[in-house]
Parts: sequence; structure tokens; C-alpha cells
Amino acid sequence: MSELVAVPMHLAPVDLSHASRLVNHGPTVLVSTVQAGHRNLMAAAWSMPVEFTPPRIAVVIDKSTFTREQIRATGTLALSVPCRLQADLTFTVGQVSGRDHAGEGPDKFERYGLGAWTSPLLHLPLVEGCVGWMECRVIEEAHTQDAYDTFFVEVVGAWSDPRVFAQGRWSFRDDNRDLHTLHHLGAGVFAIPSDTLQGRLLPDQGALL
Amino acid sequence: MSELVAVPMHLAPVDLSHASRLVNHGPTVLVSTVQAGHRNLMAAAWSMPVEFTPPRIAVVIDKSTFTREQIRATGTLALSVPCRLQADLTFTVGQVSGRDHAGEGPDKFERYGLGAWTSPLLHLPLVEGCVGWMECRVIEEAHTQDAYDTFFVEVVGAWSDPRVFAQGRWSFRDDNRDLHTLHHLGAGVFAIPSDTLQGRLLPDQGALL
Repeated sequence: MSELVAVPMHLAPVDLSHASRLVNHGPTVLVSTVQAGHRNLMAAAWSMPVEFTPPRIAVVIDKSTFTREQIRATGTLALSVPCRLQADLTFTVGQVSGRDHAGEGPDKFERYGLGAWTSPLLHLPLVEGCVGWMECRVIEEAHTQDAYDTFFVEVVGAWSDPRVFAQGRWSFRDDNRDLHTLHHLGAGVFAIPSDTLQGRLLPDQGALL
Repeated sequence: MSELVAVPMHLAPVDLSHASRLVNHGPTVLVSTVQAGHRNLMAAAWSMPVEFTPPRIAVVIDKSTFTREQIRATGTLALSVPCRLQADLTFTVGQVSGRDHAGEGPDKFERYGLGAWTSPLLHLPLVEGCVGWMECRVIEEAHTQDAYDTFFVEVVGAWSDPRVFAQGRWSFRDDNRDLHTLHHLGAGVFAIPSDTLQGRLLPDQGALL
């Protein structure tokens, strides 16, 4: 494996109290795992935060996936938040199973020429070129895993590309459009939230009624 | 209450096998409830599908909310998917508790001048002007409600505004920008996924390695 051991210098650590914000707006994520030296990677459209402190996230991982076998064996997974430049990568790793190559031959990182760096605590592969990353421990919840394919995880390390996520906030601007997140509509079509607006309080008419 | 009983004529039923697509891309939703004639409404940034068939969704509802009291009492809730024109409405109902007015005085629909129609099966209030709607039964999962504030629900009826969601797909275009969904970044700032792109399969280099 050609992984880097250190956190790449251009990335910024994300305070754990802000980690859930990385997926607050519903982006598609990449789920990566490693078991006995064999890495895997898939796309997951279905995830959401469930808590800010401690940072906890729910993610849906189908029973048919090789990723799920690896998670069940290791109790860990990493989430990388891909960006516009990675739409093809995200679609591809969501279409192709890593099981065929499990334990022999090239893994999905190698097959598709993807770079990775290794998370410092849990030594999970994080995908280069993404805009947010989290290394996570799975909270054992056998029933929800079985009944809803839903895994609750706790984030123990988080990083971002500070050009698009800094001080606990996403900043989607015209000058960083290539780094905006992907939101899966279905069939490989992604929506990209380039436009933003600030909600304001409506006047309370209660006193008039 | 000034609710309509029938489904508004300009809305389209969504096949239940496509209902989860309404929230596939991570929009903020409005959660509405009714108990003994008293309605309530809140915003929830955290939801995700967990299954297409049957259509099941997970949504996070904090213990402090009046909505949660109503859900626990009735076992039902409705989800409305708000659009760009409703950013202020969405921010406002997420900031203000309905508990103060519970059982007496105007509810949040009345206080903020919001129209509603009544879902045909469970008789829940659905918010006018939204772009997607689902009436849902809560699946009793006491542990995940307690430990993660996470409610798993099954969708039993779904509708969309066909100008932006038809044949099971969102279609975000320049001519329907006002109807695009809201994705909460934090502090009342919403991202809006107006731009879309189609992911394509990357070449598999596995054979070359």
C-alpha cells in the first residue's frame, strides 16, 4: 500500500464538537475500511448526524457489501466527504463491489488510481482529494444493524480541507466550486449545493390572533 | 383549523417505492404532528432513508421538543420537504418551541401564517408550499429513540410538486429554482443544490496492475 502515514499538511483538524457539521447538510460520503491489510471503499448516500457532543453519526450499509463484512470484523470505519471533482470516483466505488478482489489482487484504491492517507488513531484509509474526513468507532447496536442496516458510529478524529470547511462551517463560494459536496439524487446524478442563503425569523402573528 | 381535507389538485402522488428518494439527497425537512386537535411543526436537519421498499426513514428528534411528546403519544408524524421560498419559515419553526402554546392559543401554523392540508390516511397536517410530503407511522424502537434520539418511520403516503419531483426523481433546473430543497449548514444558513451532474464509471486499471 502506498499510503501516507502523516496527516497531509494542507488539511486542518476539525474540533470534535464540529465534526457532525461535516455531514449536517446531507452529502454522500465514502466509507472506507481495512482488515488484515486489505482495504475497501464504497459510497453511501444515506448518513446523518445524531449528536454533536459526542459526535455521532448514523450511516446505512447494506448487508450485501464487502464493507459491511470488514466493519463487523473490525468495529471501525472511516468517512470521507467527496467533492465535485470526485463525482466519477464516487459513482464508481458505489457501483463496483470490492469482494471480487478481497484478499488478492488490487483493491478499489489501486483499481481506480485513488490516493489515500492513514488516519492516526485507527489507521484507516482516508481518500485523498476529499474535503472532509472522519475516523470512527462503531457503537455495537446489533438490532439496528440487522433491522435497518443502520450503523451508529462515534467520530474520534476529523479533518477538513480549510478552503471549504473552516471554524466548524462549510463555506460554498464561487471560488471553491470544485470543492463543493455531492448529494445523490439517484442513478448517479448528484446535486451540488453551490448556492446558499440565510434564513430569517418570521414575525410572530400570535399576539394578533 | 383551516385545513383542506383533500390532496391539493396540483400535487402528484409519489409511488411508495420512490418515496425515500424525496430525502435521498439530505434536505432539511419539516416534522408535523397533531394530537387531540393541537398541531405542531418543527424543522429537522437530520434525516435519511434507511430502505426503499418498504419506504423507511430515520429522523432525529430531540428529547426537549414538543413534537417528540406528540409523536410519543400518537405514533405518527408527517414530513414536508421545504423549498427555497420557505427558508425563513424553516428557520423560524426550528427556533421557536410549540410547547408555549400547546393546547391554548394559536399554534405555529397560525402564528406564522402557514397553510396546511390534511393527509388522507393519518390526518396529519402537511405544510402548503413545500415540494414533497410523507405521512408516516413510527416504528416502535424505544432504545434508539432514547439513546440516539432516532425515530425510524414507515412512509404510508407520499406526494410531490410535479414541477420539481416527478417519476421518482428530483429535477433541479433554472426554471424551477424557487422550488429547490434546503440543506442546513448551521446557524440558519442553508445550501441549495441547484447544480447537478452525472457521475460516470472510471476505467478499471485492475487488469493492468
